[in-house]
Amino acid sequence: MRWEPGTPRRLQEAALRLFATRGFEQTTAGDIADAAGVTERTFYRHFTDKREVLFFGQESLLDAFLTGVTSAPAAASPLEIVAAALHSAASFFPDERRSFARTRASIIEHNPALQEREQHKLSNIAAQVATALRERGVAEPAATLAAQTGSTVFHIAFAQWIKPGEHRELADIAADVFAQLETLISAPA
Amino acid sequence: MRWEPGTPRRLQEAALRLFATRGFEQTTAGDIADAAGVTERTFYRHFTDKREVLFFGQESLLDAFLTGVTSAPAAASPLEIVAAALHSAASFFPDERRSFARTRASIIEHNPALQEREQHKLSNIAAQVATALRERGVAEPAATLAAQTGSTVFHIAFAQWIKPGEHRELADIAADVFAQLETLISAPA
Repeated sequence: MRWEPGTPRRLQEAALRLFATRGFEQTTAGDIADAAGVTERTFYRHFTDKREVLFFGQESLLDAFLTGVTSAPAAASPLEIVAAALHSAASFFPDERRSFARTRASIIEHNPALQEREQHKLSNIAAQVATALRERGVAEPAATLAAQTGSTVFHIAFAQWIKPGEHRELADIAADVFAQLETLISAPA
Repeated sequence: MRWEPGTPRRLQEAALRLFATRGFEQTTAGDIADAAGVTERTFYRHFTDKREVLFFGQESLLDAFLTGVTSAPAAASPLEIVAAALHSAASFFPDERRSFARTRASIIEHNPALQEREQHKLSNIAAQVATALRERGVAEPAATLAAQTGSTVFHIAFAQWIKPGEHRELADIAADVFAQLETLISAPA
């Protein structure tokens, strides 16, 4: 679950730099290949198109969530299982990825089609976590509720993690947001 | 917040019938206009394209959520405000809309682009509810947590509401899912 170096990563870094300076629309696959010092053919060996560059590694992120679900103790409650999934996913984002994640988020924020794709990716993760919970014997709607709640916590924690000046680890922020959710639900006005 | 009759509705019903029988891709705006007994020009007076037919009325749905937020008592907790928003939104889906909602959901389910649009719509509602909560003085991340949690509950309740054989009202199902969420969060393994 490490952040692998190599050609895809170099292409991804070159792409992010170009998207951030020149704009996503104004950057071509050829520009990215040039900037990374490879041929356009090499680019297409790794990515279908320039959009894919921003979503590279998403299967590994999904795996990290699902590994967390399956490795949680047998006695864990649905929400504890989801907390384990988030903890596992958080290890996918070590501190050295934070700057990359910030740039990526700002590119996606400015492009509605990329935003929709990002949301779809997160929905898909939540749906697969719900399936994994059901496979562990969690009934509906508890499985979907727990998975979606985890997705909400992850989303909020991630947005905080990439805020300027934020230095805490993602796992710690996620644990904090989880605690705030418990307060919100259990404490009435 | 009523389900207004008239030309847009007739076009919408004709479109749903065609999408369900012939397929979304295989249906044109002209086909829909013909089936509704109006000209294609009339179709385009009401909708930008055939996709829009499926998302007609979404501003009114957003309004229903926001009216619920603003009309909740001053002393309401963030989650009570969100429950009020859901109750208000549920009144947007009386029993006579259930069959339409079922057909619409099955069309969207089979088309990834429509799914992404639907998810984007729901995300947008959640984001606007969070903004309305902040305007009521709810701090972050409580505002986003409460709004997203409400969105999750609504989504699950809605999916249940359109299940074959389900006869309960949407507001009752939503209240039930809310109660299950409280159990999930407050009760450890």
